Amino acid sequence: MRGQVVVRLKQEVLDPQGVTIAKALDNLGYEGVGSLRQGKVFDVELATSDPAVARTALESMAKDLLANPVIEDYEIHLLEDGSGNGEEGNG
Amino acid sequence: MRGQVVVRLKQEVLDPQGVTIAKALDNLGYEGVGSLRQGKVFDVELATSDPAVARTALESMAKDLLANPVIEDYEIHLLEDGSGNGEEGNG
Repeated sequence: MRGQVVVRLKQEVLDPQGVTIAKALDNLGYEGVGSLRQGKVFDVELATSDPAVARTALESMAKDLLANPVIEDYEIHLLEDGSGNGEEGNG
Repeated sequence: MRGQVVVRLKQEVLDPQGVTIAKALDNLGYEGVGSLRQGKVFDVELATSDPAVARTALESMAKDLLANPVIEDYEIHLLEDGSGNGEEGNG
């Protein structure tokens, strides 16, 4: 089963990299870019085919290693082969 | 209108960072992690409220600045306030 952990800086945390990219886009002539924030996405292939087990594992991985809970939030998405996906936030 | 550009290494490109994270998860006791690949997500706030215009702008930004077309693929997602989202890949 495939899953996804999306890690983003919390809204109240400054994202200097995002600000720089927004400025670069402005310099390239893109108008109307209000804000841009950069995050990370981890695509994980898991041996289990049980969505509940997969979600628990991904949540635990996010807390243990993938996200810094002090400044980051994460979302878990499960992707079952070709069908729908689940979604869960912690922020 | 809010949009999202997700940038990932092409499947055939080695992702050493992902391999390292997968190893770290293994060391932490997580079993059954088949593969892990890391990508980037850009959350963009656009002045336009026209989905077609927004998609074209995000696609153009991805090509111009956000993705390296030699080694990366990108996906565009449009997020209309609280409603559905669109999806488009280029790979």
